[in-house]
Formats: sequence, structure tokens, C-alpha cells
Amino acid sequence: MCEASAFIVNGDKEELFLERVDKLIPTEEGLLLENIFGQRKVIKARIKRLELVDHRILLERED
Amino acid sequence: MCEASAFIVNGDKEELFLERVDKLIPTEEGLLLENIFGQRKVIKARIKRLELVDHRILLERED
Repeated sequence: MCEASAFIVNGDKEELFLERVDKLIPTEEGLLLENIFGQRKVIKARIKRLELVDHRILLERED
Repeated sequence: MCEASAFIVNGDKEELFLERVDKLIPTEEGLLLENIFGQRKVIKARIKRLELVDHRILLERED
């Protein structure tokens, strides 16, 4: 399976936000992430970087 | 490998922009995409949706 984990980047730190993300959809409320288990989370953030071969989605919180 | 293909969505149509994308990085010039062959393309677009299990990145051009 080719899902990726989403991390919130804060300086040098990376905090896991949601594992095994399948879908990511920008909405008015923020980024909507849905993983392969159907779990959904929304975060006011922007995409800093995708590294798909490494299964990583890096996010930065928006104020 | 878990790269995805990037498509430009225009109404009902999807146009292939770059195959086998590994990295996607927002820059001031637009979205920078790099595939597993090291090919790079930049596009003035926003992410409409990621569907990682289906290996799809859907983009919308920005004016």
C-alpha cells in the first residue's frame, strides 16, 4: 500500500499527525486527511513537502 | 515504489503532468515536482486532492 504518514514540522521537530494517509483534500476549514482506516482529521496547515517514496507528508501549521 | 502521477484537472478532464512523482515542494515560482528519474517540473497550480493509494496527485492551475 502506498499511503504516507503526515507529520507536523516545527523547527527541527516532526510530530506525527496521522498515519497511513490515503487522501488529502484542501477545504475551507483546513486540510482534510483521511487514512486507509477511514479515520479523518482536519488541520489548519499547509503542505511543506511531499516525499512519497519515503511515505512522508510534511505539514506546517497555519496561524 | 510509492510515487504517484500528477494530473492537471480541468473540468471533467485530467491531463497527465508528470509521472512517478516522488517529491512535491511549494515554492514562490509554483509547485516544484520531482520524479524518481530526477526530472523536475514547476507549475503554477494548487493541490486539489491527493489519492495516494491510487497513486494520484490532482492539481488545478492557478491564474
